[in-house]
Amino acid sequence: MTPEEKLASLGLVLPDTAAPVANYVPYRWAGNLLYLSGMGPKRADGTYRPGRLGRDTTVQEGYADARLTGLNLLAVAKAALGELSRIEAVVKLLGMVNAEPDFSDHPKVINGCSDLLVEILGEAGRHARSAVGMGSLPNRMTVEIEAIFLIRN
Amino acid sequence: MTPEEKLASLGLVLPDTAAPVANYVPYRWAGNLLYLSGMGPKRADGTYRPGRLGRDTTVQEGYADARLTGLNLLAVAKAALGELSRIEAVVKLLGMVNAEPDFSDHPKVINGCSDLLVEILGEAGRHARSAVGMGSLPNRMTVEIEAIFLIRN
Amino acid sequence: MTPEEKLASLGLVLPDTAAPVANYVPYRWAGNLLYLSGMGPKRADGTYRPGRLGRDTTVQEGYADARLTGLNLLAVAKAALGELSRIEAVVKLLGMVNAEPDFSDHPKVINGCSDLLVEILGEAGRHARSAVGMGSLPNRMTVEIEAIFLIRN
Ligand SMILES: [Ca+2]
Repeated sequence: MTPEEKLASLGLVLPDTAAPVANYVPYRWAGNLLYLSGMGPKRADGTYRPGRLGRDTTVQEGYADARLTGLNLLAVAKAALGELSRIEAVVKLLGMVNAEPDFSDHPKVINGCSDLLVEILGEAGRHARSAVGMGSLPNRMTVEIEAIFLIRN
Repeated sequence: MTPEEKLASLGLVLPDTAAPVANYVPYRWAGNLLYLSGMGPKRADGTYRPGRLGRDTTVQEGYADARLTGLNLLAVAKAALGELSRIEAVVKLLGMVNAEPDFSDHPKVINGCSDLLVEILGEAGRHARSAVGMGSLPNRMTVEIEAIFLIRN
Repeated sequence: MTPEEKLASLGLVLPDTAAPVANYVPYRWAGNLLYLSGMGPKRADGTYRPGRLGRDTTVQEGYADARLTGLNLLAVAKAALGELSRIEAVVKLLGMVNAEPDFSDHPKVINGCSDLLVEILGEAGRHARSAVGMGSLPNRMTVEIEAIFLIRN
């Protein structure tokens, strides 16, 4: 099964990727490394899921938001690559959680993205990562995740 | 116009770059990638602009500080490269804003750096990025930005 | 002296590296770049040193925790490389400090890791870095540090 077939078998649809109206871009190449801008849990209506872990958002909700963020990362990669099977490895994630000072379960939140990447990409989806707590995030969204992908020549 | 001529045409002067007195350095090479250490809004007198978005600093002030930080990043790149025209691409920025928990306009702040890079470097200045909120920053400064540049062989 | 001999001469022992039970991994390769997942001040008993700078943890304690984190990073590198002398350069650290909003001495904390890397690796240990304050960290630990190493062919 190709990654696109796996997405379909899970009933997942890659969201639209609107380029930001600004001097930054959704992705940039450096040799065969593809750097993806930080993405968030963007819903079909274009809004982001707001919330703060340890205040008004559960770990389960955060996990779902990280999974949705992973889907947005894959959508940007698809736009860059044409075929997701060109991904040799997800090299690195920086998983950023909007959380209260005493929150401590960041890994369980960011697993939502990590698990999706391995479901869709198999071994190529396994990655180095950090999962940490931010003081605040744009749109007051629950998570933001940036990524580096290694692409086959 | 070279990047240096564009800087001059805008009346911008690259600040002095004093190497940190420590076991870290302002930049490090990995092949043709130039990794720049996180920089802040350092003024001519060597002090940093302090403040926290959502408390005592406006988005306009934060934008100006991010622009000043971009100038400091270019100064380090100039020291590393000799000529800024050797920059093939600004690959990635991590834009870190010192902000209150409910602040949500991080992108508008970090645009100060993104806009400067494109003004000076043109298309080469466009980059992937994340713009996020930190719990605190060194010197209580308003922003810190780290960068990866791709350099021509 | 090899890095391993330097560690021994300082009475330092590399800790065990238990792989995380999850879809992320302790390190990932991209060409000759080795990306290390964020690590913390893990003690011999497997627990992490908790605390928050500016509240219940001194800069000296944070420095010691960053040093311990550096030892954990070297342990992962050793598992990946066999011999630490294969490290051509520590390219980049992202040093993340669990700190109160008005804390400002992040560099003095992360120096604990930077100093260790130069003690053990010499010039190869000098790196670009950012040292910044997080809103929260997993396990409420005091510091988390991620790293990129350049490895000899
Ligand atoms: Ca990187």
